[in-house]
Amino acid sequence: MLTKIKFLTAGESHGRGLLGILDGIPSGLKIEKEFIDIQLARRQMGYGRGGRMKIEKDQVEIWSGIRLGKTIASPIGLIVKNKDWENWKDKMAIEKREKMPKKVTLPRPGHADLAGVEKFDFDDIRNVLERSSARETTMRVAIASVCRKLLKDIGISVASRVTQIHNISDESKVPNDMTANQLNEIVDSSPLRCLDNLKEKEMIKIIDKAKANGDSVGGVFEVVATGMPYGLGSYTQWDRKLQAKITSLMMSVNAYKSIEIGEGHSSGAKFGSEIHDEIGWDGKKYTRFSNNAGGIEGGMSNGMPITVKMTMKPIPTLIKSLRSIDIMTKEDKDAHKERTDSCAVPAASIIAESMMCIVLADVVLEKFGGDSMKQLLKHIEVSAKY
Amino acid sequence: MLTKIKFLTAGESHGRGLLGILDGIPSGLKIEKEFIDIQLARRQMGYGRGGRMKIEKDQVEIWSGIRLGKTIASPIGLIVKNKDWENWKDKMAIEKREKMPKKVTLPRPGHADLAGVEKFDFDDIRNVLERSSARETTMRVAIASVCRKLLKDIGISVASRVTQIHNISDESKVPNDMTANQLNEIVDSSPLRCLDNLKEKEMIKIIDKAKANGDSVGGVFEVVATGMPYGLGSYTQWDRKLQAKITSLMMSVNAYKSIEIGEGHSSGAKFGSEIHDEIGWDGKKYTRFSNNAGGIEGGMSNGMPITVKMTMKPIPTLIKSLRSIDIMTKEDKDAHKERTDSCAVPAASIIAESMMCIVLADVVLEKFGGDSMKQLLKHIEVSAKY
Amino acid sequence: MLTKIKFLTAGESHGRGLLGILDGIPSGLKIEKEFIDIQLARRQMGYGRGGRMKIEKDQVEIWSGIRLGKTIASPIGLIVKNKDWENWKDKMAIEKREKMPKKVTLPRPGHADLAGVEKFDFDDIRNVLERSSARETTMRVAIASVCRKLLKDIGISVASRVTQIHNISDESKVPNDMTANQLNEIVDSSPLRCLDNLKEKEMIKIIDKAKANGDSVGGVFEVVATGMPYGLGSYTQWDRKLQAKITSLMMSVNAYKSIEIGEGHSSGAKFGSEIHDEIGWDGKKYTRFSNNAGGIEGGMSNGMPITVKMTMKPIPTLIKSLRSIDIMTKEDKDAHKERTDSCAVPAASIIAESMMCIVLADVVLEKFGGDSMKQLLKHIEVSAKY
Amino acid sequence: MLTKIKFLTAGESHGRGLLGILDGIPSGLKIEKEFIDIQLARRQMGYGRGGRMKIEKDQVEIWSGIRLGKTIASPIGLIVKNKDWENWKDKMAIEKREKMPKKVTLPRPGHADLAGVEKFDFDDIRNVLERSSARETTMRVAIASVCRKLLKDIGISVASRVTQIHNISDESKVPNDMTANQLNEIVDSSPLRCLDNLKEKEMIKIIDKAKANGDSVGGVFEVVATGMPYGLGSYTQWDRKLQAKITSLMMSVNAYKSIEIGEGHSSGAKFGSEIHDEIGWDGKKYTRFSNNAGGIEGGMSNGMPITVKMTMKPIPTLIKSLRSIDIMTKEDKDAHKERTDSCAVPAASIIAESMMCIVLADVVLEKFGGDSMKQLLKHIEVSAKY
Repeated sequence: MLTKIKFLTAGESHGRGLLGILDGIPSGLKIEKEFIDIQLARRQMGYGRGGRMKIEKDQVEIWSGIRLGKTIASPIGLIVKNKDWENWKDKMAIEKREKMPKKVTLPRPGHADLAGVEKFDFDDIRNVLERSSARETTMRVAIASVCRKLLKDIGISVASRVTQIHNISDESKVPNDMTANQLNEIVDSSPLRCLDNLKEKEMIKIIDKAKANGDSVGGVFEVVATGMPYGLGSYTQWDRKLQAKITSLMMSVNAYKSIEIGEGHSSGAKFGSEIHDEIGWDGKKYTRFSNNAGGIEGGMSNGMPITVKMTMKPIPTLIKSLRSIDIMTKEDKDAHKERTDSCAVPAASIIAESMMCIVLADVVLEKFGGDSMKQLLKHIEVSAKY
Repeated sequence: MLTKIKFLTAGESHGRGLLGILDGIPSGLKIEKEFIDIQLARRQMGYGRGGRMKIEKDQVEIWSGIRLGKTIASPIGLIVKNKDWENWKDKMAIEKREKMPKKVTLPRPGHADLAGVEKFDFDDIRNVLERSSARETTMRVAIASVCRKLLKDIGISVASRVTQIHNISDESKVPNDMTANQLNEIVDSSPLRCLDNLKEKEMIKIIDKAKANGDSVGGVFEVVATGMPYGLGSYTQWDRKLQAKITSLMMSVNAYKSIEIGEGHSSGAKFGSEIHDEIGWDGKKYTRFSNNAGGIEGGMSNGMPITVKMTMKPIPTLIKSLRSIDIMTKEDKDAHKERTDSCAVPAASIIAESMMCIVLADVVLEKFGGDSMKQLLKHIEVSAKY
Repeated sequence: MLTKIKFLTAGESHGRGLLGILDGIPSGLKIEKEFIDIQLARRQMGYGRGGRMKIEKDQVEIWSGIRLGKTIASPIGLIVKNKDWENWKDKMAIEKREKMPKKVTLPRPGHADLAGVEKFDFDDIRNVLERSSARETTMRVAIASVCRKLLKDIGISVASRVTQIHNISDESKVPNDMTANQLNEIVDSSPLRCLDNLKEKEMIKIIDKAKANGDSVGGVFEVVATGMPYGLGSYTQWDRKLQAKITSLMMSVNAYKSIEIGEGHSSGAKFGSEIHDEIGWDGKKYTRFSNNAGGIEGGMSNGMPITVKMTMKPIPTLIKSLRSIDIMTKEDKDAHKERTDSCAVPAASIIAESMMCIVLADVVLEKFGGDSMKQLLKHIEVSAKY
Repeated sequence: MLTKIKFLTAGESHGRGLLGILDGIPSGLKIEKEFIDIQLARRQMGYGRGGRMKIEKDQVEIWSGIRLGKTIASPIGLIVKNKDWENWKDKMAIEKREKMPKKVTLPRPGHADLAGVEKFDFDDIRNVLERSSARETTMRVAIASVCRKLLKDIGISVASRVTQIHNISDESKVPNDMTANQLNEIVDSSPLRCLDNLKEKEMIKIIDKAKANGDSVGGVFEVVATGMPYGLGSYTQWDRKLQAKITSLMMSVNAYKSIEIGEGHSSGAKFGSEIHDEIGWDGKKYTRFSNNAGGIEGGMSNGMPITVKMTMKPIPTLIKSLRSIDIMTKEDKDAHKERTDSCAVPAASIIAESMMCIVLADVVLEKFGGDSMKQLLKHIEVSAKY
């Protein structure tokens, strides 16, 4: 779904570390390690995280593609080391061992475990769970930070906020004139990344309750992009549609179970005359009387903020047990338990933001071209419409 | 997002016709024109369609890739002619005309019109609306029919049903033991493709009401795939995740505003212990006590039916007027009106089914390989797990 | 290898016709059917063609993507009908027939025949030879004509000339100051597309000799692109290298067996100090004292003309017999003979030109972006370096 | 051009190191670090290498994707550290420096230097030369080693040999019954990877002569793959042709200026009746009386060994000076000189072998599918034809 940008990540949850390569960023983009680390830190925030978040304080190492503070158009190579590697180097050894580590044989419902061992002919679920892990998203956030910086430099910002934890909803609306940057500034300082602090207190209670029961909760978050020009994406072929690109990247995280563009699901219960965003003219540019479409019409950005809502299911690694079957013995057992988070919705919102950044940087580069930031900015200057 | 299958469509809504090319289907698949036409007819069904559906009765012409009743692995070339072309050949002339046809200058809210003219430097909205039209999905359905036949021959079937029109919901559940084929057999004979005929009567009333007001309604539908093996898709990289593939193709239709996998949005309000599908063993294979995940865990099919819900917004071409701005004069005017449908949710469900067929055929071919149907079937026999 | 442009072709050699879809061309490109037909006619030129070229006089039908003389950014749908379809509609029937046509069972050395039946489990070689045929390149040339027109409008032209038929070589050099357009103007009026008319007469003799023996000859041709800016393609990742893109598309024709960039093979026998193109400055721009690199250094265009040489093997369909084995009976027999060309090198040079046009249009759009020709031209104006 | 396998590399020549990610390898492939290091060592062999080869003795670090001696289907993350990083960490600093390092301003003819600075708006050629460097191929060789191991386990081997250095040719033929493995065993023990040891002595003399003059030489090498089944690649669409895939990957190295399939260029001077490989039957399988096609007919492998010839131009970094222009002052100067190799053709042959391994592993996985080596082997068993 990406045209100009390519990226790959590698690394297991308890391996030596995560590797990432991002290819296709123009030269001359100013970026520092700190800019990336801030995003990694945002991903580690949020009330409801378990013990692991305390062990790791993720730090990126930049290995290539950036020189003397600027991108040089070469692939950007990133590493996030596993600080706990010493404790895992036997279980996760690269080479064959005389004494093989104990196998994990009890698949956890809601995880990749069962489908993974069936797909790949494994007899050890660890081979699955190490890669099919939220840990992998750390590198995606690092990679996306570079895209975020590119967007920032051309006036596009991407933010998010949590709107629901379990059955507690924050019904507040983001004010029309608030930029994505402003939204993030506010919610980043709150424990669950909420606008409504009263609702947030209720949310915290439900997380505490889940935790006390060894259970987990999910929720809903919103991602917003402001500063959008017209015409990112296209209607001409299915895979050029902006919403197809957005949904494919944003839904590529296992825990996300729904995505809505603009009013999304609730559009289905409205009349056509209620939902479509009427068009005005302010003397200089077109205006809209609403943004129910979420900034996308006909597969293209229409100049309004892009708004997307997503649902995260509760984390499937529970203290509370779920029925399962040992893959070796076929006995009924309670599923594999691990130290875990009770709620990861705030982190999920940062990951989703990050995926949005990658998509938007890609469609910007596709539309405007340019091998350097200087060229990109000139192309935008002569061609972009807002 | 597709690996083995490639397809492109071409054609404007009132042009000479639609062209489609499908590349990557193995040799030896038995298929007839009638199989494709049946799917095209299903796409034209449904209460609430306006006049145009009466003009066209789509018929595919097979131009290549099928010989003597079987695919020969060559690209499959398809044409669906526009039977009304004679009436449009001036407005849609390929060559420059002395007397240029009248321009469309009033963008319709909810359509690609405004973003399209801004993106492509057009002064005639017809250049946008002719391609950014539901008409284009006709060829997608034709192409997908070939994929549907491939899936049928390996035991996978894909069906859909409408579950909501405007604010009227059909809350019935598809019985656990019903195959997708059986579901389609039932709902294809009902005017709105519903399981609950009483609710369907209410839905018809709300469509009639909308129509009387020159308005339109949207709704919700569900797509189901049965006969799934383990391990289609993968967790190893973002773009190999089955749900990313599904959402990208299924959301690549402008009118669709949300997509949910399995329980989707409602997963967000459940506890982890309620939502994850516990695992059993029936002596021969693994079983599940529920299917809230919608058949996908960790980016892979897990042997359970795949279930997806989608929302279609109301059609944006209304008889009832919406405020807009003439792109030439910048005057306020009522948006461009055309003969239109009041409700196209049943058609939408067939289009979504079709996109699911393309995705599933692709991941099947990716997993099992095979240049001929004979090889594919042998590979499935020796490797597939159910 | 293509980033912005996508294309697919379909159609068998004796089927109803060829279909082509080209996606990704900006809006506002002026183009007429005649421009495409001229390229199709060029592909049919050349001394040494057999009977078939007389039957067909290829004409394109434009079905979509062009309106009132300009591209509208929608996919361009093209058809080239088989004028001889009436005579083939039984042998090439889409549907199953009571009386099945006679099978072709003797594979021709040098063709796809044997590998094709083994790959796809066929018992009739016609299923292979109908698609694995030079006929398919007709649609590639039609599609490439649109790219050629785009290049023309930004000052890039692509030409070719034949430099060798069998063992007769035209050692003349294209003058340094000759544009590709000028080259084509000269060679298009000669029977073998040669610069040296004396050598051409010898080439004609060797073709006549081959024809008299029921044999065939191959040869060598050169493709040149002039008007090149700096920096098409890139060195940052393997698949961004211009020469990788060029070779992949240009070598995707079965009959081509070698490709050389610039001095190519002969570079291997030069010292470094002889071969590398020294750099000067003429007061306004960099100059080169030679162009042994063929306009590509480090995977990028370097402002000099791009020059590529290719070898075409002799056509493998001979009147003269070659040993083969009947795939049904396993008997030794002489390979399937058909009316055929003795030499198709001039046609090959046009096809290769065409593939070069597609690559260059793609890398131009990748570098400069732009949704319309207007935007593309502005981006080039502010960013391109020559 | 790749379907199942994806890979990206990152890293500058004098940066911290090279990163590589390889995605799409089935589970269960046994592989050890030593297997990769052997290939890295082969890349560092060869008479004519300069000083740098003595500094580095490349060693791969496996960071992910392999556990307990086997692939686990996760992306394989590799690192090759720069052992000389300490000496470069100022010049190649990631972060902005108070005191910026001295810029390189004299572009070297034959290198990416000039086109690179023009493309990316650089004022320091180091930003180009660090990535556009043969160093990058180290990681490609490491990545390809995994593909080589996969091929080995299904009976395909890939080898190479040098056939020409400057104007000295080794005209010997690889014996028909020699496998690629056997070929490599022989030539890997010779200083220039030649079959004919007498010619090799002459080649060494010409290298010595070039070195004495501060000059460099290029040459020609051949790559061979044996153990090929029928039907890798396809004729159905341009980008499925095996020779298009091979040429795109193999030509993606800057120094390679020509590629030939089978008899290649010399096919152009043969009659059709001489060149096409006649077909026989030995009672069990088809045979060929020659292999002029180089194992590829109609874009597919035809069961014969694949043979490819490539030319490498002389290395453009010379001690001997070439005319150039300072990009800052526009003064005429002699181009930037560095300690360098006089001849790198043996290394080039290993790199080309490696690219062939990647292509062949990809088309094998595309044709046969399979998520694990166990499945792949079963699919080959039931479907492959030789």
